[in-house]
Amino acid sequence: MQVAIPLYPRFTALDAVGPYTALAFAPGYTVTFVAAEAGPVTDDRGTLTLTATASYDDLPRPDMIVVPGGVGTFDALKDEALIRWVREAHEHTRWTTSVCSGALVLGAAGLLKGLTATTHWALLDSLKQYGAEPLSERVVTEGKIVTAAGVSAGIDMGLTLLAQASDEVTAQAVQLAIEYDPRPPFDCGSPGKAPEGMVERAINLIV
Amino acid sequence: MQVAIPLYPRFTALDAVGPYTALAFAPGYTVTFVAAEAGPVTDDRGTLTLTATASYDDLPRPDMIVVPGGVGTFDALKDEALIRWVREAHEHTRWTTSVCSGALVLGAAGLLKGLTATTHWALLDSLKQYGAEPLSERVVTEGKIVTAAGVSAGIDMGLTLLAQASDEVTAQAVQLAIEYDPRPPFDCGSPGKAPEGMVERAINLIV
Repeated sequence: MQVAIPLYPRFTALDAVGPYTALAFAPGYTVTFVAAEAGPVTDDRGTLTLTATASYDDLPRPDMIVVPGGVGTFDALKDEALIRWVREAHEHTRWTTSVCSGALVLGAAGLLKGLTATTHWALLDSLKQYGAEPLSERVVTEGKIVTAAGVSAGIDMGLTLLAQASDEVTAQAVQLAIEYDPRPPFDCGSPGKAPEGMVERAINLIV
Repeated sequence: MQVAIPLYPRFTALDAVGPYTALAFAPGYTVTFVAAEAGPVTDDRGTLTLTATASYDDLPRPDMIVVPGGVGTFDALKDEALIRWVREAHEHTRWTTSVCSGALVLGAAGLLKGLTATTHWALLDSLKQYGAEPLSERVVTEGKIVTAAGVSAGIDMGLTLLAQASDEVTAQAVQLAIEYDPRPPFDCGSPGKAPEGMVERAINLIV
């Protein structure tokens, strides 16, 4: 399985590295970071740089694409090379997926019309402009299009994809290999669980 | 808070990027990837390259260090420049931490003698050679030394550190910002929960 993860300036690192890790640990999966041109791409904190080892032109027909989100998504929506690559790659993928605000990129490529989808909790309403019906769920599967909620949800999506694209035993073995037995120190990971005022604090940390 | 994450060849990307994300989203934290020399460092899957933007000499006294694990740890244990930097940085840190097999690096630097500590489930016994008492826990705190279990446990550790080094409100706001409300598709993330034969499968995926 050839997986491509497009990088654009100010992506969120964990959006990309969560599903990368789940998929890259599985046998038979090759994950490649791609961009308009091969080279370094820096994240939305300004302090992490990942290398894209291939250009969009180098990898036009991956089996799976995983579009990460990040503060840079809003500029990425105007990046014609990215949007065109996503739209054209999607015609041949087995799986077209996103994490966090990466769903807006799928939307801008015209892939979410009439479908349910999810994204970061702060952006759910913005899916409607692309004709999608937002769902407040961790991972939403609509045929070969799979969208995940914010940032860390990409790990859950990666394992879910493995179970569907390979088999449950593979997904379970990867989950155990990466010791994904989460114990968040607080029960505060979604707006419905967070104390009053926390939503504003969280949004201020992101932008 | 100046945080340094040392990178060495064949580290596990999520070990580094999990705590990076938790810490880099918090106000007042600057996270820097360091290595013997500034430049690109490739992970244990061979397909992800992160840039170290500073050398060990550039950043001798960070407030916090986070040592990731990975298949490359066993070579890293013989890397005198890394071990010396960890040992000397530790003299001045407020927090000295590790994820996964990164605990062995702390052990090789002589920092775990007589302490409880944790690491990836497959390596718990190997902590004993450094005089540490292994604990099968998600995050173990011994004064300013904090060790986390395998790979994904670094996210839990990052949030735990934020609560201790800053305050619980900051940790909760970051947890909400990165939508860390995990829903693993299986309950298979530690050996005690995994079906028979899964431990061997998982180990085969790692090495």
